[in-house]
Amino acid sequence: MIKETKGKQTRRKIVAEAAPIFNRHGYEGSSLNDLMAATGLKKGGIYRHFSSKEELAGEAFDYMCSEAWRARMQHLDPEAPGVEQLKQLIESFVHHRLPFPGGCPILNTAIDADDGNPMLRERVRKALRMWMARLQSIVKTAAKHGEIRRSVKPKTVATLLLATLEGALMISRLERSDDALRRAQQHLNHYLDTEVAV
Amino acid sequence: MIKETKGKQTRRKIVAEAAPIFNRHGYEGSSLNDLMAATGLKKGGIYRHFSSKEELAGEAFDYMCSEAWRARMQHLDPEAPGVEQLKQLIESFVHHRLPFPGGCPILNTAIDADDGNPMLRERVRKALRMWMARLQSIVKTAAKHGEIRRSVKPKTVATLLLATLEGALMISRLERSDDALRRAQQHLNHYLDTEVAV
Repeated sequence: MIKETKGKQTRRKIVAEAAPIFNRHGYEGSSLNDLMAATGLKKGGIYRHFSSKEELAGEAFDYMCSEAWRARMQHLDPEAPGVEQLKQLIESFVHHRLPFPGGCPILNTAIDADDGNPMLRERVRKALRMWMARLQSIVKTAAKHGEIRRSVKPKTVATLLLATLEGALMISRLERSDDALRRAQQHLNHYLDTEVAV
Repeated sequence: MIKETKGKQTRRKIVAEAAPIFNRHGYEGSSLNDLMAATGLKKGGIYRHFSSKEELAGEAFDYMCSEAWRARMQHLDPEAPGVEQLKQLIESFVHHRLPFPGGCPILNTAIDADDGNPMLRERVRKALRMWMARLQSIVKTAAKHGEIRRSVKPKTVATLLLATLEGALMISRLERSDDALRRAQQHLNHYLDTEVAV
């Protein structure tokens, strides 16, 4: 195993420590003071590793996405039937918190960047499309195995799952209650059973 | 009709001009310079009417909510059956833009304020609850008229409609395509026909 250089280690540490700040307060709302407090570094210490706040924000977003991806995939059994896998992902979204505060980085950064920073916007689009592709691929594989109705469009299933869960998360975080997420889960599971599965 | 004082007029004008800035860039992302450019006023001109940026942001949010409410209600026929009214609101959400840029102020401000400004967070909660109450009241009235299945919970219908539409809006704005919103509409209309209506 190649040993990571000290510089790379520090860089990764800064990214991990800055990520919750960006996730909770957004790009503009994260001040250099907040980032210094979170990392325990002075301005020069941060900018020795990153050319700009934008570069740090971009890496922090990618870091959160890969952590979120890993956390969600832990609850997915790739051997299970497709509809079951989709239910496992819904269950994970509703009942398992991500390993950093602030909620879903895709939702937060999408709202933050849709009229804002173009670099961040491009990264969120990429992340959203990875999730869309993953969900669609589960539906397509299930269709090949004859588990899915012929009329079902994989993109529709993927869109509905992501839209409903992200919207319910917005309500749940605002209300500080998982009520909306639980109702969304019940609805989506029922939809999968009655409209998607054969 | 009582004539509005010049001060009140100016105040209302500042709120209307500042609203799109807050809606597009969030509370922290809206700088005094942005607000000065939007209103054509100097710092002193703004702070003669508002004690703080927070006060202005709060009034701008309430202004957008009442404009959004009025815009949506224009597409609603209160004499139509309940399920039809819900479809009209979905149609309005999917196909009619609000009279200011930046998308839905509830979604934007909820994400902006869920880990941020408590005064704004409280205002978004209030606005979300007004929408929830409106949708629930449509379902309850329809239930009294025997148009709705007995097992249907008004809060579930209201939650699913808001969550799915807001989540689809997030995707549509990010992708700059109404594809997600159209899929959401089709799904929700089908849900209303098959799971809600008698």
